[in-house]
Amino acid sequence: MMAEAVFSCVLLDSALSLDVGDWSVEGAQLGLPEVPVKISKHRLHGGKQQGVDLLTLENGEMQISLIPTRGMSIYEVRCDGYRLGWQSPVKEVVNPAFINAEQRGGKGWLDGFNEMLVRCGFEWAGHPCEEDGVLYTLHGRAANLPASRVTVEIDLAPPYAIRVVALVRESTFKCCDLELQTTLTLEPGSRDFHIHDRLTNLGDYNQPFQLIYHGNYSSPFLEQDAQFLAPVKRVTPFNQRACEGLAQWHCYAGPTAGFDEEVFLLECYADEQHRTLALVHNAAADLGVSLAYRTDQLPYLTLWKNTDTVRQGYVTGVEPGTCYPYPRPFEREQGRLAVLATGASREFELTYGLLMDEQEVGIARQQVEAIQNGHPCEVITHPPRAGS
Amino acid sequence: MMAEAVFSCVLLDSALSLDVGDWSVEGAQLGLPEVPVKISKHRLHGGKQQGVDLLTLENGEMQISLIPTRGMSIYEVRCDGYRLGWQSPVKEVVNPAFINAEQRGGKGWLDGFNEMLVRCGFEWAGHPCEEDGVLYTLHGRAANLPASRVTVEIDLAPPYAIRVVALVRESTFKCCDLELQTTLTLEPGSRDFHIHDRLTNLGDYNQPFQLIYHGNYSSPFLEQDAQFLAPVKRVTPFNQRACEGLAQWHCYAGPTAGFDEEVFLLECYADEQHRTLALVHNAAADLGVSLAYRTDQLPYLTLWKNTDTVRQGYVTGVEPGTCYPYPRPFEREQGRLAVLATGASREFELTYGLLMDEQEVGIARQQVEAIQNGHPCEVITHPPRAGS
Amino acid sequence: MMAEAVFSCVLLDSALSLDVGDWSVEGAQLGLPEVPVKISKHRLHGGKQQGVDLLTLENGEMQISLIPTRGMSIYEVRCDGYRLGWQSPVKEVVNPAFINAEQRGGKGWLDGFNEMLVRCGFEWAGHPCEEDGVLYTLHGRAANLPASRVTVEIDLAPPYAIRVVALVRESTFKCCDLELQTTLTLEPGSRDFHIHDRLTNLGDYNQPFQLIYHGNYSSPFLEQDAQFLAPVKRVTPFNQRACEGLAQWHCYAGPTAGFDEEVFLLECYADEQHRTLALVHNAAADLGVSLAYRTDQLPYLTLWKNTDTVRQGYVTGVEPGTCYPYPRPFEREQGRLAVLATGASREFELTYGLLMDEQEVGIARQQVEAIQNGHPCEVITHPPRAGS
Repeated sequence: MMAEAVFSCVLLDSALSLDVGDWSVEGAQLGLPEVPVKISKHRLHGGKQQGVDLLTLENGEMQISLIPTRGMSIYEVRCDGYRLGWQSPVKEVVNPAFINAEQRGGKGWLDGFNEMLVRCGFEWAGHPCEEDGVLYTLHGRAANLPASRVTVEIDLAPPYAIRVVALVRESTFKCCDLELQTTLTLEPGSRDFHIHDRLTNLGDYNQPFQLIYHGNYSSPFLEQDAQFLAPVKRVTPFNQRACEGLAQWHCYAGPTAGFDEEVFLLECYADEQHRTLALVHNAAADLGVSLAYRTDQLPYLTLWKNTDTVRQGYVTGVEPGTCYPYPRPFEREQGRLAVLATGASREFELTYGLLMDEQEVGIARQQVEAIQNGHPCEVITHPPRAGS
Repeated sequence: MMAEAVFSCVLLDSALSLDVGDWSVEGAQLGLPEVPVKISKHRLHGGKQQGVDLLTLENGEMQISLIPTRGMSIYEVRCDGYRLGWQSPVKEVVNPAFINAEQRGGKGWLDGFNEMLVRCGFEWAGHPCEEDGVLYTLHGRAANLPASRVTVEIDLAPPYAIRVVALVRESTFKCCDLELQTTLTLEPGSRDFHIHDRLTNLGDYNQPFQLIYHGNYSSPFLEQDAQFLAPVKRVTPFNQRACEGLAQWHCYAGPTAGFDEEVFLLECYADEQHRTLALVHNAAADLGVSLAYRTDQLPYLTLWKNTDTVRQGYVTGVEPGTCYPYPRPFEREQGRLAVLATGASREFELTYGLLMDEQEVGIARQQVEAIQNGHPCEVITHPPRAGS
Repeated sequence: MMAEAVFSCVLLDSALSLDVGDWSVEGAQLGLPEVPVKISKHRLHGGKQQGVDLLTLENGEMQISLIPTRGMSIYEVRCDGYRLGWQSPVKEVVNPAFINAEQRGGKGWLDGFNEMLVRCGFEWAGHPCEEDGVLYTLHGRAANLPASRVTVEIDLAPPYAIRVVALVRESTFKCCDLELQTTLTLEPGSRDFHIHDRLTNLGDYNQPFQLIYHGNYSSPFLEQDAQFLAPVKRVTPFNQRACEGLAQWHCYAGPTAGFDEEVFLLECYADEQHRTLALVHNAAADLGVSLAYRTDQLPYLTLWKNTDTVRQGYVTGVEPGTCYPYPRPFEREQGRLAVLATGASREFELTYGLLMDEQEVGIARQQVEAIQNGHPCEVITHPPRAGS
């Protein structure tokens, strides 16, 4: 049997000191003029963007922009005139060279935060704290690690899948040696895309780690009376502020001055294969975004409702993780600080889908309800962490 | 009526991901062979300069070098063999990527300080302090913000004014969204240049801000018996060290080992249009630099006398601001921490002029005296801030 | 008499804003087709390497890779299939723009540490500490200062010596103005190379400084039963951990899980010209590396035995310095914080040599023994610093 034919190209590799520079390929060049596929990489200029690369995938339906220079974050997804992502006060795709994570008591990460999907991790992931003289900065370093290797692949046989395979390393002598291999897969004509990550401890000692997939949506997916939906087993307010909004925890307000944010901690039911589904859809239930993931890989789901004004960043985050975003010592105390043994890996699979009409939203709602299957949703009324 | 014809070119724009690279234009290319105008941009190399752009304007009299990569600071002004600026131990034009503002207890800014004019701001501007767990670093972030857009313009009709219009953004999610639009205007054959800044709060909440124009001069403008002159209403020593030099606060020493610095806080009289004028001229009063600004825009003037040795950086700063350079909490306490409402702007206009002979210095002195108009200058003998 | 003919080329100069980019020269181009000499500079790509230059010297025997962007550190030396250097978890040659030295309580330096030779210095050099509100970060800033000037020279007459002359500056307004001029010399066919450094205080005040040459070796030079050898007058355990290994302080373990590190503080005897010699050789004593230096220039020698597992970074450091790596206040207290008067310089000369067979190792051992000359080695059993 012949191996499947695959077009493959290394765009960036620090081991080879290779960078193809501005680059693109499309179906016609591969002898597939009718396959709507295009991949392009180009360097950004101006302001804090200087030296940042953007990698854009097109499949005839969607355009996905990834940021190799920022840990393979997804900047935005465009589809049919819609944009999945959000408008942050941070308007540029910021080069990590300009980020000082330790700024503002460990909140320097906020200087670069504007992605549709950003990983929080890997050595730590939550809110800043100081422990043993070390400042664990907000959401860790993953967003500000330039990828060490980026390869793109296009299958030359149906369904002509497009893949981006990249390596992101968080390595500090004596401290950690974590490697993320991330694969994003997209098929021509599809409005779904799939992320398959593998995080490996290359070090010779047990390595605690944290990983949160901080996915962020705004208008028109998010609006007054938009809904969050998932098969929720338990919802807990993150802090006192969230208690105020607990009754409407799954409904969204429109842009609201002074709202700031409410955060809820969720545990979800899953099917027998540990699959679960979390949706955000608009008020009319005819536009939405779904996120399928596995609760055995990502047991904790954080819902971030930042329905402040448009100019402050009107956005919601649906964030499955290996933990919640409390400071690391609290997560450890709660038994949510996972550990990778030497050489060990953990895999994470997520599928994002755009729901473009009432029917698609309806089907996704039914899937959620099927997983919920009439099981109760427990509402905890007090935040678990004193003083939060 | 026809619109004025203007040559205009965008040199840098992060929104378009545009950077023209090394670039220049001069009169002849615009059909104006007799108009002495030249604008050029080039990238610097070597050491911490790597990746820094320098933008140089020439008008037949002066050569002004701006640093887009460093918040549109002015590196130096050259005229007739003289150099307005100073020799810092920092010998390169430092890329902000190499600056860690939090270094040395918040004094990392000093790793890049060598400009003729650097803005201190915008979210904070003064001496470092810690408040609510946040380290407010020396002189804020403005000097280390790469410009997001730079446009140059040349009027194609007399007086053929040259303009650089640029955008500098200080944006952090949840914290601030300030935008400076700065316009520098220069006319052929002139030895004046004009800065017109507009600082806007793009956020939806009230935004405290601070802005100090840290303009710095050295030899031959500064020398033994050089003079500072302005229509001063009140002079106050910044700290105990300044008390020692209070009697001679407006006279300069030559390079003096062990001098370090003396700082004086000034309030100036202004004319009916709120215009005032501050001069530094040499001992012979035949070479000087004037700064015209408005006290309704910049009510506080700091005089920094750093007449230490040449190799330590022999320099004086004439620094109008919205505040004095005390730590932010003290400025707030004193009612000098200004606030921009949502969408609100504040404008700042400054004109620097080179005075190249006795007559020009004399005229400027008369202008100062006209504004002073015999009004008294009160001398406060004690620093307002305990322990300073 | 005619001056010696020399090929000379400036590869990088911030004063001229010059960078030749990717570049190389070899003997044939200089009319010396039979002289095995090649110098090449190329820019690295990918991950945190972005924008880093590597400068490689070849002399027919050895290949030495220097890192202009990282303070002229030596990345690795290759000879006859062997590699002098080590495998750090940090796999890329990290651009200082991505380093935040203040991270992890001042241990951010560890994010970039993987060189065969890295200078610790110049304003400070040891373990992190906070003093007067300033965080003195691990091993100082020298490794993360991009060189300001790099010149290469090749003598056009025998022995056709190759030289790299570079300038590295540590300059902060009001704080320090130190300049290192470093010259690396290499002769065709040789397996020795020579470093001649001159550190100058360009400031006008006395400048305390610290400098440690952190040279690092791994397999196959380092292995189970490899030996360290030097004419030692006194050996002192750095801390309690080192006390455990004191009896075998000059013998190496193989890669050992949980070993972490042991550090010993040495004082060495020297010959009448103050020259001394420190060796590391393998168990069979047929492969080694020698370091000749002067005890009047570098009176203190630190031996770092980091014989942890291969993946954690199996490595030993032989580190002559002007001090030991204790925090700066302790070094000051012990009288080991040297000071450069204004304009003063200190010179440092080191020669590294590869010993490729039993005979070469044997000769080097005899040289060490000749300097030791039967004099005793005092073993101190308690660490000098309480709590270390």
